[in-house]
Amino acid sequence: MSTTQNSLTPVTVIGLGAMGRALAGALLDAGRPTTVWNRSPGKGDDLVARGAVEAASAEDAVRAGELIIVCVVDHDASDAILEPLGEALRGRVLVNVTSDIPERSRQAAAWAASYGIGYLDGAVMVPTPLVGSPDALLFYAGSRKAYERHESTLKALGGRAAFVGTDAGLAAVYDLALLDFFYGSISGLVHAYALATADGVKAADIAPYLDSIVQILPPIAQYTAENIDAGSYPGQEAGLAMMASGVSHILHAARARGLDVSQLESVKAVADRAIARGHGSDDWASTVEAVRSAS
Amino acid sequence: MSTTQNSLTPVTVIGLGAMGRALAGALLDAGRPTTVWNRSPGKGDDLVARGAVEAASAEDAVRAGELIIVCVVDHDASDAILEPLGEALRGRVLVNVTSDIPERSRQAAAWAASYGIGYLDGAVMVPTPLVGSPDALLFYAGSRKAYERHESTLKALGGRAAFVGTDAGLAAVYDLALLDFFYGSISGLVHAYALATADGVKAADIAPYLDSIVQILPPIAQYTAENIDAGSYPGQEAGLAMMASGVSHILHAARARGLDVSQLESVKAVADRAIARGHGSDDWASTVEAVRSAS
Ligand SMILES: NC(=O)c1ccc[n+]([C@@H]2O[C@H](COP(=O)([O-])OP(=O)(O)OC[C@H]3O[C@@H](n4cnc5c(N)ncnc54)[C@H](OP(=O)(O)O)[C@@H]3O)[C@@H](O)[C@H]2O)c1
Ligand SMILES: NC(=O)c1ccc[n+]([C@@H]2O[C@H](COP(=O)([O-])OP(=O)(O)OC[C@H]3O[C@@H](n4cnc5c(N)ncnc54)[C@H](OP(=O)(O)O)[C@@H]3O)[C@@H](O)[C@H]2O)c1
Repeated sequence: MSTTQNSLTPVTVIGLGAMGRALAGALLDAGRPTTVWNRSPGKGDDLVARGAVEAASAEDAVRAGELIIVCVVDHDASDAILEPLGEALRGRVLVNVTSDIPERSRQAAAWAASYGIGYLDGAVMVPTPLVGSPDALLFYAGSRKAYERHESTLKALGGRAAFVGTDAGLAAVYDLALLDFFYGSISGLVHAYALATADGVKAADIAPYLDSIVQILPPIAQYTAENIDAGSYPGQEAGLAMMASGVSHILHAARARGLDVSQLESVKAVADRAIARGHGSDDWASTVEAVRSAS
Repeated sequence: MSTTQNSLTPVTVIGLGAMGRALAGALLDAGRPTTVWNRSPGKGDDLVARGAVEAASAEDAVRAGELIIVCVVDHDASDAILEPLGEALRGRVLVNVTSDIPERSRQAAAWAASYGIGYLDGAVMVPTPLVGSPDALLFYAGSRKAYERHESTLKALGGRAAFVGTDAGLAAVYDLALLDFFYGSISGLVHAYALATADGVKAADIAPYLDSIVQILPPIAQYTAENIDAGSYPGQEAGLAMMASGVSHILHAARARGLDVSQLESVKAVADRAIARGHGSDDWASTVEAVRSAS
């Protein structure tokens, strides 16, 4: 198997939900021989029309590939598919890009090692339409040898492939960190629209101005990281006490309009705990200390 | 007073905290005759060195200006300063860029009207170092006449001045909506770093990848606004149930690491309420319905 050239590596994709179909599509676009399988049949029809082979069983799918990519809803689902297939996978490389917690990735790696399966854990960080593009970010962790052998195939899924370490849990750590930022942002976004529309302003009237917030996030992400790694949070021009007062205003207005304020209350409580620890004039980054000491 | 040319309009800035000083500095940079005052003395020294006049009292400060800009911590503070000054302000234009809830802006506008004061309520949407730049966004609402008369002076504070309506509460509505998105985002950001560092990954190792999230926020903001205004939330390639499962993973991992999970619990509860209302295959925008029906 090791003599196969990368350009000819037969690839199998297991799981044909929205993301699995996008991954298989990117492989087909890149001219890779691609076998697909999904628990419920019928989801691979358009992929077959584009040149994929649909396997009759998960085991057939595994045996058809040298590189096996799994993308299902969570690790309970991937375990259910993979556990009977240890022997079929022996000597092959398994790349599980199913999102879950780091502990599950580490368990999967240990299981794979016990069968002599090369294991990579992965995470797709872009929405499906961007899969396969040069900028699409995917994280990989686990076997460096497996990553290096299949790097060119993996880059067909997204050009910005990043191998983040040999601890198989690390792709999930990066994944969850980015998702944590993502869900905080889009929850705030929807709440912002709820607040504006409660006063008769259309969401579409607010939207054009949100770029002003989006633009300041990258420098904030940068210096917040530096402060957190250094464990010191010099208050820039905007201190935590002033910012907590800003959060109170949103909270107060949202409550007066009958909106759910549970998320804002949590943000406020964390800021208040950091202020109580003496960070009132420090930067927002100091809230990390309150996050780390759950009350 | 109305014959004064805009370029010569004498301007007063009341409140010399971080933001008030930045506003006064931008006026000085633009060559405007500028008078300043702050409750605690001494904060205007560097501005005086740059050409500002420091008034001996708030009333002297008001009488020295045609356009009076107030920027203090909240409307309790601005009321404390302004309430004794109704007569001194008569015939002048008052621009209160102190952030608070829309109700307080509307009250301030009614008070100003009772004294024949031209009233604009405003909000500064950029950090202090960006004040005065062509891209700096400030919202204004209230008297359109006052805005039009002083537009060139107000643009010295930020070139992206936006008059959002004659309801004086509207600048605060836009302000709080943007801040709602902002605080959701930076709370998620700090939590992301707390999660990564709990597994030994430096915040600085995560930071370079956050641009992948930042880049997808503008299109999400756009179509989420359209969906919310339309009241329909067609599930794109990523449905709410899959996303809620993603939030569960973050929550689960964060809890196992002893981190505060109150914000994530709120995000999850809102998503679950939307799913219970039948939005499991809909877009994340459908969570607005759960936000609007506080449990
Ligand atoms: N969609 C996105 O935008 C996106 C973005 C980044 C990452 N991801 C990640 O990609 C992964 C897949 O997401 P998706 O959007 O493709 O989800 P999806 O459209 O909901 O598809 C779920 C897939 O999981 C399979 N599955 C669920 N339970 C199973 C079980 N017990 N046994 C076998 N198969 C099972 C489903 O098979 P059936 O068809 O038989 O139900 C289906 O193939 C998730 O971890 C998600 O976090 C998705
Ligand atoms: N800093 C930013 O990055 C930023 C960004 C956007 C918007 N803003 C908004 O700008 C406004 C001012 O923020 P800031 O950063 O300048 O705050 P700050 O540095 O904390 O300054 C607070 C100001 O309010 C005054 N003040 C407080 N209580 C008062 C009272 N009872 N009577 C009279 N004056 C009182 C203070 O006077 P003393 O010096 O006498 O205490 C000081 O001038 C806030 O509404 C904030 O939301 C700030």
